Parts: sequence; C-alpha cells; structure tokens
Amino acid sequence: MTRTVSLVLVGLGNLGRRFCELLMEKDAWLRQRYGLVLRLVGAADSRGAAYDPENGLDPASLARLKCSGGSVADYPGVGQPYCSALALVEMAEADMLLEASPVNLQQGAEPGLSCIRMALRRGMHVVTPNKGPLVLAYRELHGLAEAHGVALRFDGTVAGGLPALYLGQRDLRGAVIRRLDAVPNLVTGYVMDMLADGIGWEEALAAAREEGVLEADTSWDLDGWDAAAKLVILANAVLGCPARLEDVHRTGIGALDRDELLKARQRKCRYRLLATAQRVDQGDYALTVRPVALNEDHPFGRLGRKQMGVLFETDIYGTIVATIDEPDPVPSAATMLRDVLDIGLERGL
Amino acid sequence: MTRTVSLVLVGLGNLGRRFCELLMEKDAWLRQRYGLVLRLVGAADSRGAAYDPENGLDPASLARLKCSGGSVADYPGVGQPYCSALALVEMAEADMLLEASPVNLQQGAEPGLSCIRMALRRGMHVVTPNKGPLVLAYRELHGLAEAHGVALRFDGTVAGGLPALYLGQRDLRGAVIRRLDAVPNLVTGYVMDMLADGIGWEEALAAAREEGVLEADTSWDLDGWDAAAKLVILANAVLGCPARLEDVHRTGIGALDRDELLKARQRKCRYRLLATAQRVDQGDYALTVRPVALNEDHPFGRLGRKQMGVLFETDIYGTIVATIDEPDPVPSAATMLRDVLDIGLERGL
Repeated sequence: MTRTVSLVLVGLGNLGRRFCELLMEKDAWLRQRYGLVLRLVGAADSRGAAYDPENGLDPASLARLKCSGGSVADYPGVGQPYCSALALVEMAEADMLLEASPVNLQQGAEPGLSCIRMALRRGMHVVTPNKGPLVLAYRELHGLAEAHGVALRFDGTVAGGLPALYLGQRDLRGAVIRRLDAVPNLVTGYVMDMLADGIGWEEALAAAREEGVLEADTSWDLDGWDAAAKLVILANAVLGCPARLEDVHRTGIGALDRDELLKARQRKCRYRLLATAQRVDQGDYALTVRPVALNEDHPFGRLGRKQMGVLFETDIYGTIVATIDEPDPVPSAATMLRDVLDIGLERGL
Repeated sequence: MTRTVSLVLVGLGNLGRRFCELLMEKDAWLRQRYGLVLRLVGAADSRGAAYDPENGLDPASLARLKCSGGSVADYPGVGQPYCSALALVEMAEADMLLEASPVNLQQGAEPGLSCIRMALRRGMHVVTPNKGPLVLAYRELHGLAEAHGVALRFDGTVAGGLPALYLGQRDLRGAVIRRLDAVPNLVTGYVMDMLADGIGWEEALAAAREEGVLEADTSWDLDGWDAAAKLVILANAVLGCPARLEDVHRTGIGALDRDELLKARQRKCRYRLLATAQRVDQGDYALTVRPVALNEDHPFGRLGRKQMGVLFETDIYGTIVATIDEPDPVPSAATMLRDVLDIGLERGL
C-alpha cells in the first residue's frame, strides 16, 4: 500500500533543481522503504509556472529544462509564462508547498514570504530552506501554521544538511541550553583558510565563487549576515527566544588582519565565523557572530572547508556536538526531502 | 493548561534513581515549557514495589530511599515487599512504563523483557534504556507495540545521552547509510587510554570501577558485548537490518598488546573500541566491533575518556558525525526524559 503526497515547488535554482533530481533518484526507494509516493503537481520560477494535477510534472524534465537555461514556463503543454509563483500557490491543490526561492531580505523576502503565507492559509504544509521569510516573520508564520493545523518545517535554513534544528528542537527537549555555538556558513571558513594559505582576497573570493559557495551578494556571507540569520532562526526555533536580526552583535570577516590569519595557522588554530548564543539571566541569550581562532582541541578546530557544525552545552544531556561534511550541495537540497518525509510520516498524511 | 502523563518505573539503580532526581528538578520547567506534568504512580526494584495512583509517589523520597540503601518496598504507606515488578506492571493504571533494570542477557533479559511485553499488551507506551530486551526480542517487541498502537522508545540503549538512534531514524530518512561507525562504550576507551599512559591493567580496571563506568560483569564491556549489543540495536533501528548478537564479528580489548598501545600514543593515535556497520551487497551490512587506533584526523580521534560518538556516511546527507561529552551519568538517565517527552508531545498524550 502506498500513500501519495502532492507537492508544489517554488524556486528552481540550485536547491530546487537538485530537489527535482532527488525526487527522481529516490522514487523507488521511497516507495519501497516508506510506502510513500512524492508527486510534483506544480512548479514555479521567476519566469513562469506549470501545473498539472492530473498527470503530475516530471521532475527529471524540469531539472533538464533548468540545466539548459530554460524556465518552468517552457514545460511542454502546461507551462504558463504569465503565471506567478503566488498565483500558482493560490490556485494549486496540493498537500505541501516547497518554497526554495533565494534569500531576498532587501525585498521583504518576496516572493517567498507571500507564497508561504498563502500556502499556510490554504491549509498546505510548508517546507522551506529559505531563511528570509523566517528571519522576517518567524512568529507570524508559526502562528499561521498553528491556526491552520499544518506543519512549517525549515531544517535547510541552518547549516546545510546538518539536522541542527531537529537536534535542538526534538532531541534536547527537557534541557536548558546554556550555550549554543555554530559554524553555520561554509564560504567564510573557505575564504579564511585560503587567506591563511597566503592567497590574496580577490583570488580567494574568485575561488569561492567558482566553487559555487559564495552568493552573488558577497556582503551577505562575508559581513556575517548569513550566519546571523541562521543564529536568529536557531534562537527562535531551539532556544525559544524571539530574536531578530538586529539583536545579533555581528562582526564579518572583511576587517580580518591577514597577518593574524597567518599567525593563527602557525599556532595550529583555524579561523571560523562562529555564531554563539550564550544564556544570560532570565533565560535570555546574548547573540554574537564573529571570526574566532579555534585551536585543535576545539570541537570545530579541525573543521574542513566543506564542513559545518553545531554545539549544544546543556544541563542534562552534557555537551553534544554535530558536524557535517558536505562535499557537494546535495545535502542542502536533501533537507527538503527530510522535512517532507518528516511531515509525511509523522503526520501520517 | 497542563496535561498529566502517569508513569510506572521499574528498576531503581543508577539510571532509575537519577531519573527520579530529574523528575524532581525538572518539574517546574516541564510545566512551564511544555505544559506537561510527569506523575510517578508506581515503582519497583528487586525487593518490592510501591503503587499509589491517588497521590502519586514522590520522586525525591524514592531517590533518598535508594541513596540510603533502602528499597521501594520501604516507601511509607504504600511500599509492598512481596510485590514483583511484573505484578506491578500487570495491575498498574498508567500511560507509560519506564523499564530501567540492568542488562541481564544471561537470564533472558528478565525481568525487563516480561515487564515490557506486559506493558505493551496492556496498551502502555514503553521507554527503556535496557539493551537486553531489545537485543533478544527487537522484532517481537516492535510487533507488539504496533499491534497495540503504542510507542516503544529506547534512545538510552546506545551511546548514553547522545541521540544516536533518533538522529539515524528520523533525521536521515530518505538516505541510504553506506557506513555507520560508533564509539558507543565509555569504559573501553577509558581503560585503553590508561594503559597507553603506562598504567597496568589491574589499576586501570580498578580506576574504571571507581569511576562507576565498569559493569560488575567486566566481560560485558571488555570483551565488546556491550558495544556489540548497541550495534545490533543501531542495525535494527536505523539500518532496517534484522541483526542479532551472533552476527557481530566481535574482538574485545583483552588481547590488546600494551606495547602497541604505547606506540599508538607516540603516533598521536588513540585506541577506541569501534562498532562498524558497512553496507555490502543487497543492502545487507557487515557488523564488526574491534579496537582500532584512530589518528588525530579521524572524527573520533580526539574523543576524551567521557566522550562517545556516532558517524553516518550517507548518500544524500553527506557524512554526519555526532559526539557527546558526558562528565557524569545524568545524560544517560536523561534519555528517559527525552523519550517520555517525545511520546508525550509527538503523540499528544
């Protein structure tokens, strides 16, 4: 016996496209292991949408379209160049919205935020690796989800494929978290390691861009906004603390002294952009993001260039550290699968 | 608004007693954070039982009784010296059984196994950190739980307070696990580190006993039975592989050469008893437990004497490593709280 969960996917950049590939590769395994069929019925990118509740959309065709520079609007037969993502979410009949459009805080996290609001109001579960809507409207969106009896999951917003949020939210239940440390951003570590190798700034940034780990807006990563956004989500989701972006004391890596990086390397220390929540009086947390030289004995002192991590210092579960080695962007896209399966299986859709 | 979950606790050794202390210390926090009241209505140890559904049992009094060498049977008013654990589970009205009696494979994992069977048949959820019943009857007990629509949770059976099972079962859904490595046993690492320090066997064992990390039956730990039992549980719960204790290729630490330990230390390697499941053809796994010299770059190469870890090499979530630093036995007892809260909140008791 199999159950079918119908999905609408908004955003077909790196994550969305790779999620389509995962749907294709994992189809047989998901049927066999969980008796679950994930069926894509709608998709939208910035140039249009496609919707086919009867036959579903073929994830392989969508992935190919995007790889060749096309748009969802070109999808044979059902592609609609004048349909927006929001219009799709407003009319589609589906169990879940997957919102994978890029972070876009400057423009009010749109169109992601509106799509998520619409889906929750329409009684659809929502999965998103997009930090923007959660940073801007964490409480509002959770209130909407609760009011409409649906799930809102966003494991992919923090530290790529590492289940940092689930670990903190579920596995540490009952504990007081005294301190949380995270290295939730890849590119800053990558760049600082290259600088410590003696490579110049421009060359290091070019290499990071080449690797596909640096966003177009370099300030987002290098000035610590990305790490701060992730810390805000961790604070809200795990620490129960209604933090906002402006609550984070943030220092980027731009002002780092080259000599200091070289000297740290000689001391066998490794610089990482560390996001920290330290518990202060009354259960409140002090939030900071800053580059820190970590020695070899620090749990993050040996993190490689494709590795991230999170550390929870607790009262009753000791100190728990989790790290991930992500040689490619697949794990970040796979977080959407993790969230979908979690909703599908835990909620018995 | 608060909800009350009623508990029966069998076994008041180290774990059970500490769980009572946790109930006491966490009472206010659990009410405030989760709206949950955990109410102990029955308890049993090897010398008797106590049951008071009207007023509940005071966990602080129980912990004090045990600390002073007494028995549950001495509990004022309701202690019953001639009531067995099984008789208590058979007649008690409660939402959950917490089965925390010691591992006892030689005697068919009794009385734990019978108590768990009885509770599941009576429609009670079961939480247990006791490996014995799961190693002997994993499938049977899960079948019973499913047939009676109740939960069976056992996070504390593997690697102390580290949520190794939850991580593998929930957070890696959708993935194929290619390899699992675990350092799930504290005492073997503790002893091997002392031997590498140049300390003799007898002294090392005495120190481990002093620390309370060595079981009375030293063979259970030193010959790798404990690690093998944990690997069997990981294989069943996480890898979906119906492994049994006899399927594990097991090498203990007893035959380890002292010189080799000293030489490994000079090479900056650390010996740990490593439990490994390696995926082979057809989704089957080869299971081994053996002492291995881990170099500094290995994710477990810097584990301290009070640290354990688990590593999952997956197809879509990269490689995820989780470690725990457990300075005292509280985290191991707290796994019962984790399980109770998980059932209480996820099942909406």
